Amino acid sequence: MSIKAYGAHAGNRPLEALEITRRIPGSHDVQIDIAYCGVCHSDLHQVRSEWEGTLYPCVPGHEIVGRVRAVGEYVSRFKPGDLVGVGCIVDSCRHCADCDQGLENYCDHMVGTYNGATPDAPGHTLGGYSEQIVVHERYVLRVNHPEDQLAAVAPLLCAGITTYSPLRHWKVGPGHKVGVVGIGGLGHMGIKLAHAMGAHVVAFTTSDDKREAALSLGADEVVVSRNADEMEKQANSLDFILNTVAAPHALDAFFALLKRDGTMALVGAPASPHPSPDVFSLIMKRRSLAGSLIGGIPETQEMLDFCAKHSIVADIEMISADDINQAYERMLKGDVKYRFVIDSKTLKGNEAKV
Amino acid sequence: MSIKAYGAHAGNRPLEALEITRRIPGSHDVQIDIAYCGVCHSDLHQVRSEWEGTLYPCVPGHEIVGRVRAVGEYVSRFKPGDLVGVGCIVDSCRHCADCDQGLENYCDHMVGTYNGATPDAPGHTLGGYSEQIVVHERYVLRVNHPEDQLAAVAPLLCAGITTYSPLRHWKVGPGHKVGVVGIGGLGHMGIKLAHAMGAHVVAFTTSDDKREAALSLGADEVVVSRNADEMEKQANSLDFILNTVAAPHALDAFFALLKRDGTMALVGAPASPHPSPDVFSLIMKRRSLAGSLIGGIPETQEMLDFCAKHSIVADIEMISADDINQAYERMLKGDVKYRFVIDSKTLKGNEAKV
Ligand SMILES: [Zn+2]
Ligand SMILES: [Zn+2]
Ligand SMILES: [Zn+2]
Ligand SMILES: [Zn+2]
Repeated sequence: MSIKAYGAHAGNRPLEALEITRRIPGSHDVQIDIAYCGVCHSDLHQVRSEWEGTLYPCVPGHEIVGRVRAVGEYVSRFKPGDLVGVGCIVDSCRHCADCDQGLENYCDHMVGTYNGATPDAPGHTLGGYSEQIVVHERYVLRVNHPEDQLAAVAPLLCAGITTYSPLRHWKVGPGHKVGVVGIGGLGHMGIKLAHAMGAHVVAFTTSDDKREAALSLGADEVVVSRNADEMEKQANSLDFILNTVAAPHALDAFFALLKRDGTMALVGAPASPHPSPDVFSLIMKRRSLAGSLIGGIPETQEMLDFCAKHSIVADIEMISADDINQAYERMLKGDVKYRFVIDSKTLKGNEAKV
Repeated sequence: MSIKAYGAHAGNRPLEALEITRRIPGSHDVQIDIAYCGVCHSDLHQVRSEWEGTLYPCVPGHEIVGRVRAVGEYVSRFKPGDLVGVGCIVDSCRHCADCDQGLENYCDHMVGTYNGATPDAPGHTLGGYSEQIVVHERYVLRVNHPEDQLAAVAPLLCAGITTYSPLRHWKVGPGHKVGVVGIGGLGHMGIKLAHAMGAHVVAFTTSDDKREAALSLGADEVVVSRNADEMEKQANSLDFILNTVAAPHALDAFFALLKRDGTMALVGAPASPHPSPDVFSLIMKRRSLAGSLIGGIPETQEMLDFCAKHSIVADIEMISADDINQAYERMLKGDVKYRFVIDSKTLKGNEAKV
């Protein structure tokens, strides 16, 4: 089964139209016609070989939504025509303690939606910048949003769950004051979700320009982190900080804003280390620095249901597949509000050049 | 009321015999004849002005045990003759959220047992290297150990509670595998306490010499942290790490030993920063780096009661007050198993030289 896709043959080459194959659906598989795929920073890092071990051809994309085309004989939870999503995970060992607890994201054998190990051709997984995908039913999510919101649901599958999971794990809710650092693809979801969970949300940005936007996303307050006076006013006041900024930056300024027993969770790993955090600041108020990676499959379903109930979707800019190289450049400049989403229909007209 | 003490007039001068005064006990005060005082690394840092803001004359000492000499009229919990202890805290605001929860250690107005602000002469608190101390009853602890263990109880007041509090806060108990990094004054208490709490204890040391000692303290396993093979065997296996090493060191090697959701708590602040921790390691297993500072007064009482019940005391080497400068030099070389304790009787013969 040959289908159209978009990807790259090397880290220093642009993405281009490709033909790829998908496996014949097995008895537990769901075959999905992809409608839209969000564009994540990870896609860019992987396809440009900024992370180690990129396998080519590389087809990125792990914010996938679409409609079920066919299901294997043992699949009972989905039927043709259902609206579904696939996120960052398409397989895992299914029997470790993490998998048993629905935390496939922490399984040592988690298989990413692209660049993961698979017996399927070409030996590594190929992502959502493509017309179709075939995924074991365990890793397929149900989408309950109205169909006209489908494109804006796509980014929930990575940006949504990556921010939802730590907010839930650290029990954010009414009565909490929560900081969200960075107002990009992840941060804009963090603000919407923390607000919907009932927390008082303080958005932190380096740019004065983003004040109005952050307020309209649901922030109760906006702090320009370069403004020492504004920062000082938040000292010792936050229960939790969701830090979505992957670029190396001083963490200490944010620690000082946490109450006793507060945690700052990082969801982005910097390419070079952050300045070493001040241990004194952790000790004096029993504060914690933590990390969090996407979320498990059951929690991803919970997040999608929560978002459907609260009418939450991402703010997106739709692009065609041919726009992807340009979109990457704009993403690097922060020139997107807040997520690009590829309209998969635009793959159809493309002829593979290889 | 003039009493004998031992302290320094400047950061670059040795400790020597001093005469100091204590306030007349007020209606809520407990006047204590000090029997023994432990010698903590903090004493050395403060008296030698290695930390900012040391006020002179400086009389260190915050691991105090002794017998009640007199009590103020409203004191009901103590009477003359009682065995008592005083730790790192002699006052706090008594009305903030931290104080209300018995977490005086995190109160912004916590007054340290030495170098803290006080209306008493000379305007800053003077610690336990002295014959007597007068302390508000709220900050006085009851000692239920047999009297012949009193000297070895002294270090519980700082080293004991500093390790007990994080072990309790992170819910260490049966079924847990706990790492204790460093086998010194703090670490040797951490091993004893974690063992008594029912955890499987892995002691980490840089020195092969300490294997037997660590096992006899209660460790179930000992790992020499410079031995990569031994470290690798512990990968992803620890629920919690109590890191007692204040010297700057690579934290990443220990993060890798934590299970998913594991926490490493630091109880020592390095003079220069640790190498910046690898955020990737935190994110991939939702691990945390935390800090913890001593413990609150109710928890200190709980720790003393726990230690009395489990017959836990520190391993000590008794010294006379005149030995203190030499003891500091030995402490810097790690040449003590595991805590020096000053016999306060030895202060009596000393004539103040100033
Ligand atoms: Zn992503
Ligand atoms: Zn697994
Ligand atoms: Zn101490
Ligand atoms: Zn207070």
